[in-house]
Amino acid sequence: MPDNLMQELTDSFQRFPGIGPRQAKRFVYYLLHASNGTANRLLEQIAKLRQGAARCSECQRFYFLTNNKTSQIICDICRDENRDANLLMLVEKDIDLENVLKTGTYNGQFFVLSGLIKILDKQPVESINGLELLNRVRKLAPNSEIIAALSANQEGDHTVDFLKKYLEEIIARNQLKFSTLGRGLSTGVEVEYSDADTLKNALKNREARS
Amino acid sequence: MPDNLMQELTDSFQRFPGIGPRQAKRFVYYLLHASNGTANRLLEQIAKLRQGAARCSECQRFYFLTNNKTSQIICDICRDENRDANLLMLVEKDIDLENVLKTGTYNGQFFVLSGLIKILDKQPVESINGLELLNRVRKLAPNSEIIAALSANQEGDHTVDFLKKYLEEIIARNQLKFSTLGRGLSTGVEVEYSDADTLKNALKNREARS
Amino acid sequence: MPDNLMQELTDSFQRFPGIGPRQAKRFVYYLLHASNGTANRLLEQIAKLRQGAARCSECQRFYFLTNNKTSQIICDICRDENRDANLLMLVEKDIDLENVLKTGTYNGQFFVLSGLIKILDKQPVESINGLELLNRVRKLAPNSEIIAALSANQEGDHTVDFLKKYLEEIIARNQLKFSTLGRGLSTGVEVEYSDADTLKNALKNREARS
Amino acid sequence: MPDNLMQELTDSFQRFPGIGPRQAKRFVYYLLHASNGTANRLLEQIAKLRQGAARCSECQRFYFLTNNKTSQIICDICRDENRDANLLMLVEKDIDLENVLKTGTYNGQFFVLSGLIKILDKQPVESINGLELLNRVRKLAPNSEIIAALSANQEGDHTVDFLKKYLEEIIARNQLKFSTLGRGLSTGVEVEYSDADTLKNALKNREARS
Repeated sequence: MPDNLMQELTDSFQRFPGIGPRQAKRFVYYLLHASNGTANRLLEQIAKLRQGAARCSECQRFYFLTNNKTSQIICDICRDENRDANLLMLVEKDIDLENVLKTGTYNGQFFVLSGLIKILDKQPVESINGLELLNRVRKLAPNSEIIAALSANQEGDHTVDFLKKYLEEIIARNQLKFSTLGRGLSTGVEVEYSDADTLKNALKNREARS
Repeated sequence: MPDNLMQELTDSFQRFPGIGPRQAKRFVYYLLHASNGTANRLLEQIAKLRQGAARCSECQRFYFLTNNKTSQIICDICRDENRDANLLMLVEKDIDLENVLKTGTYNGQFFVLSGLIKILDKQPVESINGLELLNRVRKLAPNSEIIAALSANQEGDHTVDFLKKYLEEIIARNQLKFSTLGRGLSTGVEVEYSDADTLKNALKNREARS
Repeated sequence: MPDNLMQELTDSFQRFPGIGPRQAKRFVYYLLHASNGTANRLLEQIAKLRQGAARCSECQRFYFLTNNKTSQIICDICRDENRDANLLMLVEKDIDLENVLKTGTYNGQFFVLSGLIKILDKQPVESINGLELLNRVRKLAPNSEIIAALSANQEGDHTVDFLKKYLEEIIARNQLKFSTLGRGLSTGVEVEYSDADTLKNALKNREARS
Repeated sequence: MPDNLMQELTDSFQRFPGIGPRQAKRFVYYLLHASNGTANRLLEQIAKLRQGAARCSECQRFYFLTNNKTSQIICDICRDENRDANLLMLVEKDIDLENVLKTGTYNGQFFVLSGLIKILDKQPVESINGLELLNRVRKLAPNSEIIAALSANQEGDHTVDFLKKYLEEIIARNQLKFSTLGRGLSTGVEVEYSDADTLKNALKNREARS
């Protein structure tokens, strides 16, 4: 029977994203059964990842620092001079950033909010790295564009509303632009199952093809 | 035990959209158990619907004709002079048309293709009411716009490609425009789970908010 | 746009088992588009089914009477003298009865409760055709067995508890037996995902194989 | 962007049971973001688990050895003299064993097959720890019972067939019994959705209730 350590490790795995108690326990048995090679490799990989874990002081994303840790506090994306410094995309989380990079069509900078603002959030500024965001936005040249690339759900919309007010003054003073992702039919979506908002936006954003 | 009639009625219900053999049989038992009132009402409603069923010679949609059947061959939408005659939306099916009407933002005319073109379709013109479509498009005034409001899937895209070629000449001759629904984030879609195409389009169609 | 009749027929289809508003509407469009042949066949089948619909005064099941309606009030199963009159299986509904028949291993009689008893049911006797059940059970010869073949869920268990008390006196007086379906692993169920009750019963009902 | 280590760790997590590439990557980001406390605790728990991981030479299960590792090669269940030595339950995997223990009704011994036999398995003996199983069965006293507590699916049934032949001789010679878990309605299963085999067994295993 699982003794305390097995239960404690099960608890640790339950904190992994999307993992319930049953699957957490299956992970523990997987590790109990694993070969020494597999187990040691995992331990080593996690330890190395943690040693190189760093948070970029500019975009706030967590990333893995291969070497020269002490000398870097700014990530490779933020230091890349080939990227357009006049475009700043705000994303909820690191995986969103990676998803945008994979499209290969965005060549600007990023800022990771590390969360969205829930409806009754009492500390909205903290929820979106607000102070760091202000510092980052202050560095934008006039006419730069801030793109809030947030999910098309209630929290995303609520966060956009908050951001517009929170950044209002600096946007006006520095003549910045503020935009949000376009709405329309996502790949795979059928007209029959689309809500009225999506159809309205798909119609408004319709694309000339000839 | 179900005798032949019960099996035949089960077969008929299996042809209803989205109904498998198990649910078809449940429908038969539902009707066997139903009160006379319920059963007779259903029979009467179906019979009346069929008596009034008509297909509009303009937009090709099936609709229910309340009265004066003989005098009408054009549906109420097509006869509505308040609708913008310079906008013609092509939809796959009647329910799509109804879904667009519900948004309350489109005030043009419609044409129902009654289907999409599959990749190896050998009779693509028949699949989309092609001849009726040509007749309908010929009536458009110069500078009118044809909006292909099709689902954002492979068949939808393939049908758009076909339509562009099929209508090419008449579009050029009559100076028409041809457009498709805008792509982007549909309501509820998260950035993390969006494919590259959707993100690209959402970025391209981004909306200024200040 | 759907006028009143279309909405009324949609409402009728929503009363079909397992059908929501969206699918009900698709049914209406299916019938609007259907050929005259398809539509007339459906109407005829439903009308015929209703003409032959009968409820057996013995087992209470609804069935379809092919001919000689007036002379029959007892269904073919109840009149079948080859079936074992000393076994009476109680089922929730007609489809359950049909499912048991398909196993080909039960050769007794049936009684259809036409429902189960919910936890706070105020008229439990009505919910299970209680008076007809008493009449039917009274006809059983001494030593006959009543098998409650109910679903292995809360309502099924609750109904079994009620039946035991409801039939207690007559069971004792006429020396009847009362049994319920065996519990254990259903086809496809894995040990890892089985609850404690199922495993206990599977262990208790284990089968010698050599 | 994820460099090699992040990809390697993603690969390692993909080998965890039930984890695909997307969730594996979310795990990596979770660990990149985690506090030092959380990360170090996880590393320590995994390392401790591996140090104490042992395989019982009797029942073949993997378990966690709290102390005195060198002196133990037999697990606490197998050494427990209060458990009935005349009952040996064969289970597919450790979690199944744990699931049976939780029922609180089985007080015999166990043997973990560590797998089931697939239909075209070329090394069936290896797939189920066959040699260790023979050794274990040889130690059973006459009249002991072997209970194959396997899942009610094709692989489970196939493994039971194999076991019956594989153990045939020793069962006959030592006058052992061989049984399998009872089949019937699992908790939550409805009569309407039960297959014929399940209903047959539920009927055969029906339980007298009065």
